[in-house]
Amino acid sequence: MIEQHHQNKVFIAISLDGYIANKDGKVEFLDTFPAPPGDDMGYSAFTDTIDALLMGRNSFETVLGFNIPWPYTKPVFVWSHTLTQVPDELTSKIQIVKGSPFEVLQQIHALGYQSLYIDGGKTIQSLLAHNLIDEMTITTVPVVLGDGIPLFGQLDEMKKFIGISSKLYPNGLVQNVYKRG
Amino acid sequence: MIEQHHQNKVFIAISLDGYIANKDGKVEFLDTFPAPPGDDMGYSAFTDTIDALLMGRNSFETVLGFNIPWPYTKPVFVWSHTLTQVPDELTSKIQIVKGSPFEVLQQIHALGYQSLYIDGGKTIQSLLAHNLIDEMTITTVPVVLGDGIPLFGQLDEMKKFIGISSKLYPNGLVQNVYKRG
Repeated sequence: MIEQHHQNKVFIAISLDGYIANKDGKVEFLDTFPAPPGDDMGYSAFTDTIDALLMGRNSFETVLGFNIPWPYTKPVFVWSHTLTQVPDELTSKIQIVKGSPFEVLQQIHALGYQSLYIDGGKTIQSLLAHNLIDEMTITTVPVVLGDGIPLFGQLDEMKKFIGISSKLYPNGLVQNVYKRG
Repeated sequence: MIEQHHQNKVFIAISLDGYIANKDGKVEFLDTFPAPPGDDMGYSAFTDTIDALLMGRNSFETVLGFNIPWPYTKPVFVWSHTLTQVPDELTSKIQIVKGSPFEVLQQIHALGYQSLYIDGGKTIQSLLAHNLIDEMTITTVPVVLGDGIPLFGQLDEMKKFIGISSKLYPNGLVQNVYKRG
């Protein structure tokens, strides 16, 4: 048996000042510039490369709050130590996981999912602190919010990446991809 | 007489988490990845487009602290309400300016300088808050510092820009240019 290579990938949009939401957790700024017609800015191509998603409770509740049909076709793991149940119609699509970053990843890998979409500020920060983020696709929405919920947080040591691609979209957004350095 | 169009431009490097220096004001992270040989990553081309520089006292003292020959050929205006003198050998190259953002710019424009390189976090933040930043060339050094002095600060309202170019350098840095939207 060939051991699968585990990959943890981020695909996220931020403001120029590095926020993923305003201070109330709202993400209206993402819609400042409409997406180019017929172009999902790499989202489908990205999700084709992942087996499952791992997100925190905040992200999960943000998605629920959109009041749209559940948008993910791949299994979603919600990392929460307080959440005990999910809406009935989602029980087949969502699993709650608990534990340290390593424990959580181990549980997911044991179920056969190797390439993970890591979403949400705190989840990304936790994995990054343990050198567990392999790749980040960061789309910058060119607005300065002035306040909000940051993508990155405090770290005890610098984490190195390396830029591997950079793209300007016709709507004025830029998308940069970084791999762990 | 044709009135010159005033332009205030930023050309700055930041970490992935948006810092221009670590929390002690040190900028060693800028040297994590050596510049591509023979390539100044757009710096000369940028400085060819400006008439003078405006920076705050912190940036000025950081540059002095490098213990290198004064690196600027264009006139430098240091915006400070406390600084009263500059090193003797620099008196022909530096002028101290005081006042509000508008007053400071008026003084500089009156001397015939129209296209300005705006440098330093607080100086950039002050002008941005007054919608006085026209263009920003932001080079991302792909490291997450975890703490430091941020490029952007608090704002009362969102400021819109639009991406106009995006470039990946062979050393893994990315450089994005934004114009005021």
